[in-house]
Amino acid sequence: MIYEPIFLDVNSEVPMYRQLYGSIKERICSGCPAVGEKMPSIRRISEELGVSRTTVEQAYGQLCVEGYLVSRPQSGYFVEAAVIEKTTLPTDDMTDDEPEPTVQYDFGSRYVDSRGSDLDLWRKYLRAVLSREDIVTSYGHYQGEPELRRQLAHFGSLLRGVNATPERIVIGAGVQPLLSLICGLLGERAGRVGIEYPCFPHAERVFRDFRLDITALGHDKYGVKPEELYASKADVLYLNPSNTESMGRPMPVSRRAELLEWAERTDGLIIEDDYNGALRFRSLPVPAMQGMSDGNRVIYLGSFSKLLMPSVRLSYMALTPELAGLYRSRCASYNQTSSKTEQLALAEYIRDGHIEKRLRRLRKIYSEKSDRLIALLNEYFGSIAKIRLAETALCAELILQSSQTPEELTAIALAGGVRVIPADTEHGAPKLRLSFAGIQSEDMPEGVRLLHKIISPYCQ
Amino acid sequence: MIYEPIFLDVNSEVPMYRQLYGSIKERICSGCPAVGEKMPSIRRISEELGVSRTTVEQAYGQLCVEGYLVSRPQSGYFVEAAVIEKTTLPTDDMTDDEPEPTVQYDFGSRYVDSRGSDLDLWRKYLRAVLSREDIVTSYGHYQGEPELRRQLAHFGSLLRGVNATPERIVIGAGVQPLLSLICGLLGERAGRVGIEYPCFPHAERVFRDFRLDITALGHDKYGVKPEELYASKADVLYLNPSNTESMGRPMPVSRRAELLEWAERTDGLIIEDDYNGALRFRSLPVPAMQGMSDGNRVIYLGSFSKLLMPSVRLSYMALTPELAGLYRSRCASYNQTSSKTEQLALAEYIRDGHIEKRLRRLRKIYSEKSDRLIALLNEYFGSIAKIRLAETALCAELILQSSQTPEELTAIALAGGVRVIPADTEHGAPKLRLSFAGIQSEDMPEGVRLLHKIISPYCQ
Repeated sequence: MIYEPIFLDVNSEVPMYRQLYGSIKERICSGCPAVGEKMPSIRRISEELGVSRTTVEQAYGQLCVEGYLVSRPQSGYFVEAAVIEKTTLPTDDMTDDEPEPTVQYDFGSRYVDSRGSDLDLWRKYLRAVLSREDIVTSYGHYQGEPELRRQLAHFGSLLRGVNATPERIVIGAGVQPLLSLICGLLGERAGRVGIEYPCFPHAERVFRDFRLDITALGHDKYGVKPEELYASKADVLYLNPSNTESMGRPMPVSRRAELLEWAERTDGLIIEDDYNGALRFRSLPVPAMQGMSDGNRVIYLGSFSKLLMPSVRLSYMALTPELAGLYRSRCASYNQTSSKTEQLALAEYIRDGHIEKRLRRLRKIYSEKSDRLIALLNEYFGSIAKIRLAETALCAELILQSSQTPEELTAIALAGGVRVIPADTEHGAPKLRLSFAGIQSEDMPEGVRLLHKIISPYCQ
Repeated sequence: MIYEPIFLDVNSEVPMYRQLYGSIKERICSGCPAVGEKMPSIRRISEELGVSRTTVEQAYGQLCVEGYLVSRPQSGYFVEAAVIEKTTLPTDDMTDDEPEPTVQYDFGSRYVDSRGSDLDLWRKYLRAVLSREDIVTSYGHYQGEPELRRQLAHFGSLLRGVNATPERIVIGAGVQPLLSLICGLLGERAGRVGIEYPCFPHAERVFRDFRLDITALGHDKYGVKPEELYASKADVLYLNPSNTESMGRPMPVSRRAELLEWAERTDGLIIEDDYNGALRFRSLPVPAMQGMSDGNRVIYLGSFSKLLMPSVRLSYMALTPELAGLYRSRCASYNQTSSKTEQLALAEYIRDGHIEKRLRRLRKIYSEKSDRLIALLNEYFGSIAKIRLAETALCAELILQSSQTPEELTAIALAGGVRVIPADTEHGAPKLRLSFAGIQSEDMPEGVRLLHKIISPYCQ
């Protein structure tokens, strides 16, 4: 009798039928009653355990749903399957998420200056959206909220010279989901991708995940060399013309025109990642390359993480008309990734003109902060390092004479309480980056002094 | 003299240097002065136009940054390049986003019942997170906020029987970004994916976008047939065992065990999409398949769109230890897609026990609503249709005797003011789905009556 050792607790918060279900399941899984055996009737269990027939019916019903029991008309319930569940928790070799080290002076790039962050205003817009019930209880538009796409078409045209209608704009939670979308839309057309190194590692990751061929393209002082591009047989070119990292400045218009000509001639496609393209403070922003073309060969990618808040995952792209048509024909199988609430808050924030005000304010703040940081670095490191401004990255670069790697120097600095960003090496000299985006101006002098004290013993 | 026809407006809001920059650029692009020609000196323009030398320097500086001019030491400024920008806006064939038709009774699945939505409580949690400045002005954790992953590990274990540590949980803005991640991590190991149709089209989309081979697997009354799985040579099996659509009920444990055995024997991997797995109201939820295994062969995918709010893009997965290790080794090149604010709000919402309360409430609401809808459908359509409940999909199914396709019937209903969902056909009979998630109970009688009036003339 399987029900003999079953004890049900009438005072428990767990419903009776659930207790009974659990007990029977446990017994079946331990092999008694065995597979094929007939179960006692509902009436009999009900009488012997002193529970209602409904309780037993519910327990048996659930066991049937899960496949442990089967009900055969006119003959009763039988054990259908016994499965030994492995309930031991897996032991991982992985360590838990590492605790953050104590950082006194943070020249890392994970924060933005809260003075420039318009936090109260942003909260106001989010709250206004949250108060609209119909918005929160329904799914968003697959392509991104139409109102935000309208605002972005206008904003992109005004501030970046991008030519796109709202129908060609697709919103996503960062550049990676958008690049994944592009790779999917291109299909076999994207066989080989040409990239200029150093490139945004998150973009390269997506191309690698899609198992595309990646060709590293050489560059001269104007950027990617057109002859290498032709020779590479690339179908797609990924680049950031408003901030070519290898040059530390925008790509000149003549080279842009040559690359657009490549696309026309070879039926190629250019993915223009305009990361922080609008946020220049030493000169005017250079208009986007997409706007120099007829829009049939260039996909434009823009992002708001530095412009708005790093916590807001919101990027957008302007597809070519051809790819936009393909995307829309597949719309039923794509979901939007970006938060609907944040999209609608951003639409109203842009509509009310705040993004331009914010850009002006950020330009002022970053211009002052970069001047201050460069001056401090010259004061302390002038004799032992080359110092450079990476404008769009919101960083100063420090190229040191040291036998340590950038990663080693970063770890030494961090142990002393200063966070910096390891970069690559230049002619063997390790390069560190110091972001001025997050740190407060008044903390810079002491931060640079401390950094100098910590790492100068490791420099010649 | 290029500066002769230049008129600068001192009363304009556009800064003088920008006006000058624009005028010179326009002239260069129209071919005069020509490429190679020397520009007038800064002093000369300054004197002739009556502007400061700084103004001219700024305008020239910007033109150099963009590559229109080049500055040669000791000799002055020269025209470097002239590019004719195509400023005509592209004309799209695409129509603008279609206006929503007027829907009197909405049996579509884009909404959830606001009675069950806990909207005020959810707003409260979001607002509490928004008030913490450091959170909003910094980037989130690439893998998802550690606090939310801890809560999900607990929640998944408690409610779905999932075995996973927070280190193996990855958060994403929906199932699609998570599946993209999986495809990227699997690389060449994911050559062929076995799928049971009908399947979630958004999942199939991702596999197609990654250009994987897709094999349709046949099923019997227990689900995917193991022999077909072995014969298919699939490396990966994608399925939804708690709601096998073809059967309208969960996959029994015996079949689950057979599929797990396939994975062990062939070094295969199972992706278990547990869409709405916790939200059952006719029986207890069936524990996840991942928890039946040692976790080395099953990736578990869970989602919150129906449980919380459709507008919140938040899904999660429990990776196998091996894939979690690979993921973490690549963490520097993956960005989180889900909103940090919404993640942290959800963490506290779960921690305070609201998700269990909400599940209980939703079960009650959906149990009542489904009973009511099924009763109404029987009353009106009993003689001309087969009627079925699709529990996890929160839908009733109506299989009609009609020569129209599901899409045609849906369009006819929509024109009459009733939105339903077209499904597939069963033995030639068109199937419609009516969701009871969004519509109010009190609107159901009139909605079903109207639907019957509209479409019964098209049925035999």
